[in-house]
Amino acid sequence: VKERAFIEWIRAQNEWDREDIVVGPGDDCAILRCGDQLLAVTTDQILDGVHVTLAADGPYWAGRKAMARNLSDIAAMAAEPLWACATVAMPRGFSEEDAKQMYKGRRAISDEMGCPMIGGDVGSWDGPLAISVTICGRVGEHGYILRSGARPGDALCVTGSLGGAWRSNRHLRFTPRIAEALLLARRYHPTAMIDLSDGLSTDLGHICTASGCGAEIQASAVPCAMGAGGDVDPLTAALNDGEDYELLFALGPEDADRLLADQPLAPVTVTRIGQCTDEGGPVLLDPDGRPAPLTPAGWEHETHESP
Amino acid sequence: VKERAFIEWIRAQNEWDREDIVVGPGDDCAILRCGDQLLAVTTDQILDGVHVTLAADGPYWAGRKAMARNLSDIAAMAAEPLWACATVAMPRGFSEEDAKQMYKGRRAISDEMGCPMIGGDVGSWDGPLAISVTICGRVGEHGYILRSGARPGDALCVTGSLGGAWRSNRHLRFTPRIAEALLLARRYHPTAMIDLSDGLSTDLGHICTASGCGAEIQASAVPCAMGAGGDVDPLTAALNDGEDYELLFALGPEDADRLLADQPLAPVTVTRIGQCTDEGGPVLLDPDGRPAPLTPAGWEHETHESP
Repeated sequence: VKERAFIEWIRAQNEWDREDIVVGPGDDCAILRCGDQLLAVTTDQILDGVHVTLAADGPYWAGRKAMARNLSDIAAMAAEPLWACATVAMPRGFSEEDAKQMYKGRRAISDEMGCPMIGGDVGSWDGPLAISVTICGRVGEHGYILRSGARPGDALCVTGSLGGAWRSNRHLRFTPRIAEALLLARRYHPTAMIDLSDGLSTDLGHICTASGCGAEIQASAVPCAMGAGGDVDPLTAALNDGEDYELLFALGPEDADRLLADQPLAPVTVTRIGQCTDEGGPVLLDPDGRPAPLTPAGWEHETHESP
Repeated sequence: VKERAFIEWIRAQNEWDREDIVVGPGDDCAILRCGDQLLAVTTDQILDGVHVTLAADGPYWAGRKAMARNLSDIAAMAAEPLWACATVAMPRGFSEEDAKQMYKGRRAISDEMGCPMIGGDVGSWDGPLAISVTICGRVGEHGYILRSGARPGDALCVTGSLGGAWRSNRHLRFTPRIAEALLLARRYHPTAMIDLSDGLSTDLGHICTASGCGAEIQASAVPCAMGAGGDVDPLTAALNDGEDYELLFALGPEDADRLLADQPLAPVTVTRIGQCTDEGGPVLLDPDGRPAPLTPAGWEHETHESP
């Protein structure tokens, strides 16, 4: 199956006409109205051999990543995590100690982020390890942030540094940017936001498509992770590797000036990497200002179309 | 891993201290407070080779069952389904047509029950088909019904007929008893309820344990499905086969008299199969009134401890 085509087909099936579904599939979370509250809901899976390598990474980090990936989607909406639930399909060789380690990895990040597990299902089977997590968050007074609100002239910023997340095991050990997203939303009015799971080149395309704008990125401004590249150059790694789980967001130029002067997320850095333009897809400007199309070369080992 | 022991261990880890978590793991759904509303949340998975046989049953019925099983847990709380989300891990051989059939099976029951999919994640891998579904429901004015409210003297009733769900393919084709549960909750004050997934002998044990009571079942009163038994006798099949997805519930004797006279769920029958007693586990009374312990011989191919 071509996952992306299948997902497009699903979205064309036009499933509902309901006022409580404020935002359906296609952003990092769905938004649901529940009485006077708005909820942000996301679901994602960790499959052995795709998102983790159980034999090498171990069950602790598999459990942690299953939870952390979903929390990153909650961050991308600037929501606060409320609770999680999960199903786990355990391979026959999974020991009691393996199961407990998986729980402990999941629990460590649950506790850190205030997102308890309120239910789940555990089963054994002949297949590899599969963990599916659903997280529900709460939208605060500042509201939620979609991919679709960026305007021409908005600055484009990222948190942290990008590239090489698999080589450095950051794809397992990252901290979801929940606190950072909430602070950004409260003080700096981001107009669009996404978490960098597919890679900057792909995820920036998602913001441009959803917002109906273009983007210019200064190659020299992209914050490349130390030693990110391995055999490839650090910029290519930063643009395409994916699984950084940092935030990419747009905001007004004055808000951006203030944010960059404040650097309120320290020790997490915020870097301005470019700006939104009127139209066309993302463009990369080399140090001499020469443009080249920035095509989605994100690492599409599977479809990250969440939720 | 021994799933049940692992789940007991998890529950002993004492995860939270939060007022919005009204009911945590251990019943058919968790209950969450969201503003002035109560939500019922459940999650469950369908694994090829455990809950379905993809090659024989086909993707349509796998998709439908993934959704229907969770809806049955929503029914067990007497909640109304609101929305669902899902992750799907597709085997390499899964064709586009397979994927669409899976969607259509899921969608058929979503539409019937008013429970649209608000998000999901689809990926391919080298493992077998795994579908994980989370459903959120709404608790109405009549409140939710736990496993723990049964009182000595309460009548015990079941909907439909039991046994042989796998031989007859009812485990794929059942209709979750949402409408029936809502009607029971509105008019007949059930004190405890569960959906029959593990089999009457096991699930009745869950009610007795949660409620701190015993139970007497009249063997001659148990509604056995036509031809349920195959090679085993129909009563044994009705007690132990599991995956009936009917409702087992307790209610006051006068409410039960009224319910049995009304038969308001027709064409779905309601049968009184026994009553709750002071203590001890479930007991089966043969036609001469001789008691025998009714031990959990439900079909534990995996742990159905939902949510």
